[in-house]
This record gives sequence, structure tokens and C-alpha cells, in this order.
Amino acid sequence: MPQYKLTYFDLRGWAEPARQLFHLSHTPYDDVRVPMADSERSWEKLKDTTPFGQLPVLNVDGKFDIPQSAAICRYLARKFGYAGKDEQEEAWADAIVDQYKDFSVAFKTLIFAARAGKPQDELLKIRYEIFNPSRDAYFGILDGILKKNKSGYLVGDGLTWADLVIADNLHSLEKLKALDDDNEVHQNLKKYKEKIYSTPDLEDHIATRMDTEV
Amino acid sequence: MPQYKLTYFDLRGWAEPARQLFHLSHTPYDDVRVPMADSERSWEKLKDTTPFGQLPVLNVDGKFDIPQSAAICRYLARKFGYAGKDEQEEAWADAIVDQYKDFSVAFKTLIFAARAGKPQDELLKIRYEIFNPSRDAYFGILDGILKKNKSGYLVGDGLTWADLVIADNLHSLEKLKALDDDNEVHQNLKKYKEKIYSTPDLEDHIATRMDTEV
Repeated sequence: MPQYKLTYFDLRGWAEPARQLFHLSHTPYDDVRVPMADSERSWEKLKDTTPFGQLPVLNVDGKFDIPQSAAICRYLARKFGYAGKDEQEEAWADAIVDQYKDFSVAFKTLIFAARAGKPQDELLKIRYEIFNPSRDAYFGILDGILKKNKSGYLVGDGLTWADLVIADNLHSLEKLKALDDDNEVHQNLKKYKEKIYSTPDLEDHIATRMDTEV
Repeated sequence: MPQYKLTYFDLRGWAEPARQLFHLSHTPYDDVRVPMADSERSWEKLKDTTPFGQLPVLNVDGKFDIPQSAAICRYLARKFGYAGKDEQEEAWADAIVDQYKDFSVAFKTLIFAARAGKPQDELLKIRYEIFNPSRDAYFGILDGILKKNKSGYLVGDGLTWADLVIADNLHSLEKLKALDDDNEVHQNLKKYKEKIYSTPDLEDHIATRMDTEV
């Protein structure tokens, strides 16, 4: 079995779906976490050794590195059987993750503005003019796929890496109070997230992981 | 052979690398272009029939649609032999395209601001504070990969869909005067683009296509 080393910051973030793929498939891996507390110092040392100056990075057998979270997940999902059962399903998983990546631009804009301590009126403007319209369009797409697909999964009738990516982001959105109690679509997506999170072989991991804000 | 129908606006844009994959592989396809001139009217009719309310969309055999440009290209590249020669190369092509997608956020910010007719000082601020730093980081990564790889291609020793995506964006950047004559990295990337554009089976297409700004 190949030796896998996954390096990321000590967050769920862009590495969590890859960690979940290791847990689901009972594949041992080295879960290297650059501490956030002294992240600048640790990260400065590490940065130039990464392919794109970014994390996460997956190293395989000490031989090659894969950067970019979706590339890492797709690589692992295809090895472990979570990429979709044929080329059509694989393409759909890819498309859904890319749609999430488009939405994540608005998501990051809101998160970074909050972290940068921008004034409240500016944060509200970002929330209502940038984040909410992007979230609503994205949620409409997810809800439509789930209603049409009926299996409870986003692709075909089984779990794929697209479910792991989307459910983990829904978990972050829930923590950030971006899912409304009185909105039917939001509650449908919350139930979908709970279904994915209750996947056998994932529950233990979720119960014991460090559950950071994002 | 499957019947392919690729629908997009009458632009290079997010559909051009998929068109190039059809040309490279001598695969017939229906190149449906929603006219830009009356795009609102044509597009309004079409929008609700697309999976994500967006173009491009690839329809295969009238049976299923694939949305999202990278998902479309990856699907075609794997069919036509331009995805990389093993799983490691496939992951690298994926990672490079995702790095481009990250850069494209800054690229789109600049393009949309110019189209929206923002005042010159605001455009300059976006160019110098958002676009240029993102471009410089992205170009550094591309130049580093090409120097290390030595084949003249971004992945392994042959053409992949990552080259088509990156070269076509470099062509847009050149048109938008974002490649400087006196910058060595910019000129290296321009030469790289010219190499990809001079690929046999691609030259005819490039010479005869409608060469829009983006």
C-alpha cells in the first residue's frame, strides 16, 4: 500500500474531505498539521518546499506531491472508489465540486472580511450584496440536484467525494449561522449534511476530530 | 461514436479548450453558440434548461448534460487521450487547472470592472492591488513548472488539456496587454503559448476561429 502524507494547517478547511476519504477507506496516512498558533514561522519554513506555495499537499510514497484540494480528493476518490461509478458520474462529481469552488469565492470574501476586522456596515454589505446572492444560487442548484436524484446523494445512488466536499462546507455554513431555521431549502441541505455525516466509518472520525470553525 | 453538442456563448471563453479537444482528436461535434448580440433574449430561453443555469454545457448523445468547463474538458480529455498518461499526471493536470481557476477570480474582477465602466482610478487600483499580485504568483508557478519539466509542456512530455486551458488564457492576457515585453517570465510564457498554439491539428482551428477578446 502506498505511503500517504497529507500536509495542511490544523483546520478542517480544504483538507478535511481528503482526511475523510482516508477514514472511509480505512487507509493509514500521515496527517501532518502545521500548527495555527505559530503558523507563520512553521509555514515560512515549509512554503518553498510545496509545489504551489500553498497547502494542502498530498505526498505519495515520498516520490511525488499533489497540490490543490480538489486534485488531491479526486486522486484519492478514484483510488478508493468514491469518484462515481462511471465516467458520467465522475463528470458530475467534478462539476458539483467546481460549482462549490465558484461559490467559495463569495464565502472566502465574507470570512476574510470578518477576520480582517472590517466595520459592521461593510460586513453587512458583503453579506447581503455578495455572499447571500451567491449562496442562494448555489443552494438552489444543490437542492435541485438532491430533489431530482432522490437517492439522498448528489451523484448517482452512492456516496462520492462531492458529498464529502459539499457536506463539510455546509457544516461550516451552519457554524457561521448562514443556514436559516425557517428556510425550507436551508433545512433540506442541513438534513442532507446530517445524512452524509452519519455515514458509517465517518461517524467516529467526525466525533473525535478537532472541529474548527471552517 | 457519441453525438456531442457543446453549447456556449459566441466567445472563446470557458468553452474554447473543449472545442480544441474536439479539433485535436478529429471528433465531430455540434458547436452551438448563443449569439452575444441578442444574448439576453436567447439566453433567457435557454437558461432554465441548463443544469446549473450556466454555460458551457456538453450534451452527450442527447442523454445527459455535463456543466462546468473543467468537468467538460476533463471528461473529453480522458476520452481523447489528453488527460495525462497516468494517475499522477492526471492529478497534476487537475491541480494546474485549479490553480488557474484560483487566478481567474482576479482576472474576472478586472474584466468585469472594465466592462462595468468603472472610473479609471478604480480600475488602476484593481489592476495593481488585486490583478497584478495574483497574476505574478500564478505566472511564477507556471514558469517554475515549465523550467522544471523541460518538455515544453506543463505535464509530463506531451500535450494535456491543462496546456489548452492555460495557453488560451495566456492568449487573452496578451490581448488585454497583461504580458510585458521586458519581463522575462512573461516572455517565457508567451513562447510557451506559441508552442501550444502551433500544435498540428490545432493551427487550422486557431487560424479560422472567431478570436474574441476573451
